[in-house]
Amino acid sequence: MTLKLAAIVESLSSEFDARLAGDPELLIERLSTLEQATAHDLTFLSHPKYAGKLAQSAAACVVVSPSVEAPAIQRGACIIVDDPYRYFARITQLWKRHHSAEPAVAVHPSAFIDPLAAVAPDASIGAFACIGPGAVVAAGVRIAEHCVIGRNAAVGKGSRLSARVTLAEGCSVGERCIVHPGAVIGADGFGFAPHDGRWEKIEQLGGVRIGNDVEIGANTCIDRGALQDTVIEDGVKLDNLIQIGHNVHIGAHTALAGCVGVAGSARIGAHCTIGGGAVVLGHLALADHVHISAASVVTRSILKPGNYTGFFPIDDNAGWEKNAATLKQLHALREKIKQLEKSLKGSAA
Amino acid sequence: MTLKLAAIVESLSSEFDARLAGDPELLIERLSTLEQATAHDLTFLSHPKYAGKLAQSAAACVVVSPSVEAPAIQRGACIIVDDPYRYFARITQLWKRHHSAEPAVAVHPSAFIDPLAAVAPDASIGAFACIGPGAVVAAGVRIAEHCVIGRNAAVGKGSRLSARVTLAEGCSVGERCIVHPGAVIGADGFGFAPHDGRWEKIEQLGGVRIGNDVEIGANTCIDRGALQDTVIEDGVKLDNLIQIGHNVHIGAHTALAGCVGVAGSARIGAHCTIGGGAVVLGHLALADHVHISAASVVTRSILKPGNYTGFFPIDDNAGWEKNAATLKQLHALREKIKQLEKSLKGSAA
Amino acid sequence: MTLKLAAIVESLSSEFDARLAGDPELLIERLSTLEQATAHDLTFLSHPKYAGKLAQSAAACVVVSPSVEAPAIQRGACIIVDDPYRYFARITQLWKRHHSAEPAVAVHPSAFIDPLAAVAPDASIGAFACIGPGAVVAAGVRIAEHCVIGRNAAVGKGSRLSARVTLAEGCSVGERCIVHPGAVIGADGFGFAPHDGRWEKIEQLGGVRIGNDVEIGANTCIDRGALQDTVIEDGVKLDNLIQIGHNVHIGAHTALAGCVGVAGSARIGAHCTIGGGAVVLGHLALADHVHISAASVVTRSILKPGNYTGFFPIDDNAGWEKNAATLKQLHALREKIKQLEKSLKGSAA
Repeated sequence: MTLKLAAIVESLSSEFDARLAGDPELLIERLSTLEQATAHDLTFLSHPKYAGKLAQSAAACVVVSPSVEAPAIQRGACIIVDDPYRYFARITQLWKRHHSAEPAVAVHPSAFIDPLAAVAPDASIGAFACIGPGAVVAAGVRIAEHCVIGRNAAVGKGSRLSARVTLAEGCSVGERCIVHPGAVIGADGFGFAPHDGRWEKIEQLGGVRIGNDVEIGANTCIDRGALQDTVIEDGVKLDNLIQIGHNVHIGAHTALAGCVGVAGSARIGAHCTIGGGAVVLGHLALADHVHISAASVVTRSILKPGNYTGFFPIDDNAGWEKNAATLKQLHALREKIKQLEKSLKGSAA
Repeated sequence: MTLKLAAIVESLSSEFDARLAGDPELLIERLSTLEQATAHDLTFLSHPKYAGKLAQSAAACVVVSPSVEAPAIQRGACIIVDDPYRYFARITQLWKRHHSAEPAVAVHPSAFIDPLAAVAPDASIGAFACIGPGAVVAAGVRIAEHCVIGRNAAVGKGSRLSARVTLAEGCSVGERCIVHPGAVIGADGFGFAPHDGRWEKIEQLGGVRIGNDVEIGANTCIDRGALQDTVIEDGVKLDNLIQIGHNVHIGAHTALAGCVGVAGSARIGAHCTIGGGAVVLGHLALADHVHISAASVVTRSILKPGNYTGFFPIDDNAGWEKNAATLKQLHALREKIKQLEKSLKGSAA
Repeated sequence: MTLKLAAIVESLSSEFDARLAGDPELLIERLSTLEQATAHDLTFLSHPKYAGKLAQSAAACVVVSPSVEAPAIQRGACIIVDDPYRYFARITQLWKRHHSAEPAVAVHPSAFIDPLAAVAPDASIGAFACIGPGAVVAAGVRIAEHCVIGRNAAVGKGSRLSARVTLAEGCSVGERCIVHPGAVIGADGFGFAPHDGRWEKIEQLGGVRIGNDVEIGANTCIDRGALQDTVIEDGVKLDNLIQIGHNVHIGAHTALAGCVGVAGSARIGAHCTIGGGAVVLGHLALADHVHISAASVVTRSILKPGNYTGFFPIDDNAGWEKNAATLKQLHALREKIKQLEKSLKGSAA
């Protein structure tokens, strides 16, 4: 399947002020990276600092920003636009629409839909999916094979659930969301009252409310709230294997990378980013626009926007061992330095 | 659905010595937190130190300890009991029983039950579940949609498996356990013998034995043993996305928070707690009553009860970078301090 | 089920030069560890340094290396071979073949196989599995219950997929691979272009290509590439709950322990090992034979083979708190030491 350059530019013309330099009849067969593009590929230059790589690219056409227009035109066909990365993102969406075979809108005969569920006539439901009583599946929703939609759960317009997603009783997903395989939305939060050395279960009576345009990664878990709901606001992006504890609140357009753990009742602001493997402890707050580096542990509220980090720098084993051992004496070393300062003042006097 | 205050207190009267101050006919519509409770809600005060918040609460009734009886009664209706948190935990259980629609005891027609499986007549088996030959499903068990119970596996009385749980061949779960969606019990442990730069698989011939009253979180994995079994004792609570390696032994009533990883053959005592994202290395032992902070790495056996921690404190980026860079010189700095001490002694002499 | 010692040695005789000292008619009932072996068990001594434990073992027979032949024979029956651990690994495989009831080669009547899928006549397909149009399932493949094999995906000869594995559209698994329950191969990579405080999805148009003899743990996720494929080479072993980002490349025979996260476009060499819970950041390279300790964070390319570590050493809480607090002054302390050195030189002059 191929698309003409002219067709690509035309399809995005209502949204972008882009200019094509080159043959509009050129046929594009594939999207690719600058380095790996071959003669029928379309690619992009994410940042002018990589302009030096332009000349070597064999691509049919490169999407570039106006600042590199001259060398780009010298190389060959190009599309000049203000934000090449976003423009290319939209081309990937166009490509996906043209090239993926959407399942026919249909309910697979093996799916089990409770008679008390409300499924829109144009929703598609995959093989062996289960839709519980009182569940609402809105218009244009696509639910893949093996999904389990619990009693009274709701999936908003145009959302897509990949294979094996669990949306538990009473939980809701907004519109245009994408949920990847194995995600579990609405398992019980981890709540127990200690008693005589044992743990008494606190039943988790809240739900999970997920906004619009949220993406949830494979095998990611979002627990239901204890009394109130766990809330994920509009536009949040969660990568794979993330744990979201009960009653967490994540503000709009925040993104969490893979393997992040957020403990119960943490409140993360809007427009934050949290790097892979980071841990956010419970019952604390992050302001809007807080950025946490990968593998860092957030142990206190952070009320000032900015970048925060905390992990032990990697070293060769021998170096690490020496420094890690000395680290256990760090406080004592500080005392020695104080003592030295005092002695030196004494001897200087 | 509502419950009268009198009915709530009465239902727990055999177990707790609780006293109701206020109108026993008051109808409770919801359980809530102290801050969010409205005029028909029941809530609790977990600790006397929060007594200052009592006056502001709009709750219909608050569960409190005797030490705050006076201000609680002044505010309005209250239940006075020695351990308000546990009392409230039991109310959440009562609420859950009254408010959740239990599936009718039945085997869904789409479930596949091997003729050689033994399923108790009052067990319920969800849609598309698979029960293998020789498997035993005891009385009162509830197995939800899409569970896979392997050959010769066993589920004890009254246990509940949520959707999409895998219990592999020969593994067993005790009585009154709760297993959340996507949990995998009995996948192969990670065992390989190195040979000529390749890995020779060591087949994992042990199983997994899980005690009574254990709770296992969503997408958590417990590997089968290599030769002997992996063992989880009674009352253990495992949160989501936890990895338990082969031949691990976890003592009774220990609790692990989300994203913890426990490597093979580690032996964790009873009544321990391990914070979220912590890593316990293999072949080591933790005594009973050891508490590990979140994100800490346990690299040696810990034989003394107590609290242990090890993670790099978070800082703003600039601060972290300066200190992390200096950390690589820490051992050298210690040598310099020694040298300074020597020099100072020399110059003082 | 039992095996005679002679039969065990005979079955491996084409591959190993092993010698049996003891009664070849001895019946072995079980494989076990040196410590736990009873009178009908076969076990092994992994390393001569544990030879002291030999005398206490009640095992029927012990696999040992030539260096401990004398004490081993004094104890009782033994098999003498150059690499006892690998020899024992092969015995576990023999045991597994003899003792596990392989599913009859068959397609379960409940499985849904698209008419356009190509399934080898001797492949077995479990209950409720879904095989999409254009998918290829090669000879001898075993696909367990509830697997979802997407459109145009491929599973190579002799591979085994456990229950609930998702292999997404267009992704491929090589020959003789083992994939454990809940693994997700080919979910979308985490790719977004920021725009006006929101995230614009970059459709993930690449796939996942997995080589031969790869093992993939339970609930592990391997994302599809953005434009090119994510690649896992031959012989790679991935433990449970691992996250592999889009366009990662993992070289042959590398092993990753549980809970590791590898961010997008990282390139890990061959014959590497990465400890549990480690994090590898994106767009960096690890040479062949690089070994990363558990819980370490790889923040830069590592081009030299060797062992690398970086985590904060665990301590009792009080010790950690003192040292962690001082750590925030580390850079300032270094400046003080410099000052002291200067002062001392001055006072010495």
